[in-house]
Amino acid sequence: MISSVQMSAIQNLKNYCATLSDINNSISILSWDQNTYLPPKAHPERGQQIATLASILHDRQTSPKLQKLIAEAEDQLYHDSPDADHALVRVMRRTYNQSTKLPPSFVEEFANLTSQAHAIWTQARLDDKFSDFAPVLDKIIQMSKAQAEYLGYSDHPYNALLDIYEEGLTVTQVQKVFDPLVSKVSQILAQAKNTFNQSFSPPAPLAITKQQQFTKKLLQTIGYDFGRGREDLSAHPFTTMLGHNDRRVTNRYSSGDITSVFTAMHEGGHALYEQGIDESLARTPLGEGTSLVIHESQSRLWENLVGKNRHFWQFLFSQLQEYFPEVFLSQYSDRIYHQLHQVKPSLIRTEADEVTYPLHIVIRFEIEKLLLEDQLQTSEIPQYWNTKYKQYLDVDVPSDREGCLQDVHWSMGGIGYFPTYALGTIMSVQVWNQLQSELLDVPACLSSGDLAPIHNWLTDKIYQYGSTYTLSEVLQRVCHSDLQIQPFLDYLQNKYTTPNT
Amino acid sequence: MISSVQMSAIQNLKNYCATLSDINNSISILSWDQNTYLPPKAHPERGQQIATLASILHDRQTSPKLQKLIAEAEDQLYHDSPDADHALVRVMRRTYNQSTKLPPSFVEEFANLTSQAHAIWTQARLDDKFSDFAPVLDKIIQMSKAQAEYLGYSDHPYNALLDIYEEGLTVTQVQKVFDPLVSKVSQILAQAKNTFNQSFSPPAPLAITKQQQFTKKLLQTIGYDFGRGREDLSAHPFTTMLGHNDRRVTNRYSSGDITSVFTAMHEGGHALYEQGIDESLARTPLGEGTSLVIHESQSRLWENLVGKNRHFWQFLFSQLQEYFPEVFLSQYSDRIYHQLHQVKPSLIRTEADEVTYPLHIVIRFEIEKLLLEDQLQTSEIPQYWNTKYKQYLDVDVPSDREGCLQDVHWSMGGIGYFPTYALGTIMSVQVWNQLQSELLDVPACLSSGDLAPIHNWLTDKIYQYGSTYTLSEVLQRVCHSDLQIQPFLDYLQNKYTTPNT
Repeated sequence: MISSVQMSAIQNLKNYCATLSDINNSISILSWDQNTYLPPKAHPERGQQIATLASILHDRQTSPKLQKLIAEAEDQLYHDSPDADHALVRVMRRTYNQSTKLPPSFVEEFANLTSQAHAIWTQARLDDKFSDFAPVLDKIIQMSKAQAEYLGYSDHPYNALLDIYEEGLTVTQVQKVFDPLVSKVSQILAQAKNTFNQSFSPPAPLAITKQQQFTKKLLQTIGYDFGRGREDLSAHPFTTMLGHNDRRVTNRYSSGDITSVFTAMHEGGHALYEQGIDESLARTPLGEGTSLVIHESQSRLWENLVGKNRHFWQFLFSQLQEYFPEVFLSQYSDRIYHQLHQVKPSLIRTEADEVTYPLHIVIRFEIEKLLLEDQLQTSEIPQYWNTKYKQYLDVDVPSDREGCLQDVHWSMGGIGYFPTYALGTIMSVQVWNQLQSELLDVPACLSSGDLAPIHNWLTDKIYQYGSTYTLSEVLQRVCHSDLQIQPFLDYLQNKYTTPNT
Repeated sequence: MISSVQMSAIQNLKNYCATLSDINNSISILSWDQNTYLPPKAHPERGQQIATLASILHDRQTSPKLQKLIAEAEDQLYHDSPDADHALVRVMRRTYNQSTKLPPSFVEEFANLTSQAHAIWTQARLDDKFSDFAPVLDKIIQMSKAQAEYLGYSDHPYNALLDIYEEGLTVTQVQKVFDPLVSKVSQILAQAKNTFNQSFSPPAPLAITKQQQFTKKLLQTIGYDFGRGREDLSAHPFTTMLGHNDRRVTNRYSSGDITSVFTAMHEGGHALYEQGIDESLARTPLGEGTSLVIHESQSRLWENLVGKNRHFWQFLFSQLQEYFPEVFLSQYSDRIYHQLHQVKPSLIRTEADEVTYPLHIVIRFEIEKLLLEDQLQTSEIPQYWNTKYKQYLDVDVPSDREGCLQDVHWSMGGIGYFPTYALGTIMSVQVWNQLQSELLDVPACLSSGDLAPIHNWLTDKIYQYGSTYTLSEVLQRVCHSDLQIQPFLDYLQNKYTTPNT
């Protein structure tokens, strides 16, 4: 039996968290608007408004009152308290520690530095001149090392930074996955380049308004609830959480290709995860998806494992034919399927295919690790970058703009973020394999466009729990395993070296 | 010379206010989204989010720290300090007093009551049954009386409530304006009913997307800057301030009439006022329009005195012809002008013409005053309402739904709000007359659609100052007068009893 004192300590913490959640969601609303509808001249003031709310949130996340509430809740947790109560306390302890371990002066200095760095990076990228960015990046690396010291770690300072983006992630874990990846992917790559060798470009423009109708319909097909979300236009597609019943996606459209279709699947995957969280977790810190890796596993699962599956392609192509009968003639089906799977080592991470994508991440991971170990100086990044691109991808990097200046992450102080992209992709295959082993006749679901069984299985196994479980717990519960690279390599091997998969 | 101590006390207060302004604007952003793009199922949680930010704002508006900052600024104000500094301190003292005079328990109780009342009113209106709403309205009246006692007043408790919406407004002032209005408007009405006797309805539907393009163009014509705002769709049109460079309007469209054109002029008038405020007042409490009366004077000026002016009509009609050549045939110009000026006593305030509109307000003002004086019981409202509508407007009220249940204001506790609508309309004529006496050839500006001189004059005289001056100060500075009913009556007499004006 649960005593009323215990209920009340947990409930008190929940009440406090409800306000944090409201402020957090308010920031997301301001920022969604910033990326969709904000009038051009209002950008600087919107930055100030977001900073004001962020500072109010930070004050409340570091207040002695919260410390007391967490301690009281910790005291009153029992072994058999519900998982969600244990998780609530664990997550709030983690948030509180992360927020209080860094001195306010450090937080302010880091924010100022990254704000400057972002402007410098933007200009350096325009000017194609890494040397202009190197000094400020160097300061970011130094402050990231200091940040690691404040946060604490065992074994490697990088562990402290990886942990910010994915609770408990370590260099050792990442390397265990990345080490076999490089050699094996290089082998697959050699064959994959020739497997899907047909290309396609639409013989007539694809009207943007039609595409918008199409992606709305597609989102509904995968189970996205427009009663609890929207799809809007933005320069860079994203998914954002404005409340339990308000998970929005954005997209962008080009009349020359069908990228918007797979962007809708990708952002839709993020959003299905968020829409599937149980209502009992609303306005608590467990009411959003657990982690970057699990999130990316779901966006990738819907984008690649469902969206580009041969069986689903039958359905998707028939839908495209309905909306654009003049473009998607039956004889093109195979050519487009090929086009979607073309493997071509390239310079830009965000445009990379499924096979080469993880290699882009491995290079960034290696550089971050070496920088933190003082084995590499920021000024040496371009040369290291270009050598690695030649070695792993066999491409020559003609400019820093298309090389080590391409990503925004470092300018924002996001050291430790990149690995989550690749790990999410790797995890998506483990989850997909498990789903196929438990569900009957997945191919039939896919070819008929009846995705409810897939959506329901994922909701049941993963989505409903929000942030209740950590990455390792989710993997154990769902796949009875830790993170494994082999299923991903097998998937690549199977799909990209056999023409008819 | 201003001492550095003084500068610092004012500056400290300004810094504090900047945060208040950010929170206030954040609430407006949440609420703009609520009225435009919010997914249907997210409405309840959005209410919670707004309530959380409102409570944070309230805490900061009533904090001892603010009291200290205001007191220090007051100590260090000199007679020759800038008007804006005097105004900043005056406005913050007023805000602080208004927020602290009401006990928190009262504020909470009143919020709960009006939240219930709004739901009850909605249902009672659907059921056309005032008696269901009367008991909760009675509680609102009792609490409004208590509110008046907390806030303090001289002469009449209604003064305390009027002051909430318009600083310093009193029953005596309102009556001085309303008393001559009733008898004089009744006389004008008798003639006006027959002056504009032609009617018009479009022979073909007016496509909504074309109307949207048209209202955008029209807003640009009057001087609205889309770099600092937007126009979106909403169920009820409104203007809102999300930041100094972000003043948004909304509109609604019907394919059967051109109401959207005058809604754009009305909301555009509010927005021009807000966009015209000097940048030095951004993020201070002076950085928004002064008061409901001045605001309404500007929306009405642009909607009626510019928008429905005979000279401007020449320009506006030619524009309509460009966008809808199949509908606005030249021979219709006069008929439509007539249609726009038809005077017809009616039941619904928001649909009333210029002549009868103020009578709707007078009735509501009389009822509110009598309720606060205990001269009228809430249960007696329908009978009183219907009698007055017969007496002033010569219409029979067939149902409470079209009678005393039509407005949302009372259910929200907004006793004292209504008079500002009529006073704004009355003021608009005083300002317009003054503008005409100072600017050369206003008719030529109007007929050519060159509205910049009008916009510039208003910016120079009123808009730039934001909330620096009170209503009486603005009237004195601009019109060298207090609020006068005669110009408004002369305008109605002149326009509505002479067919060719």
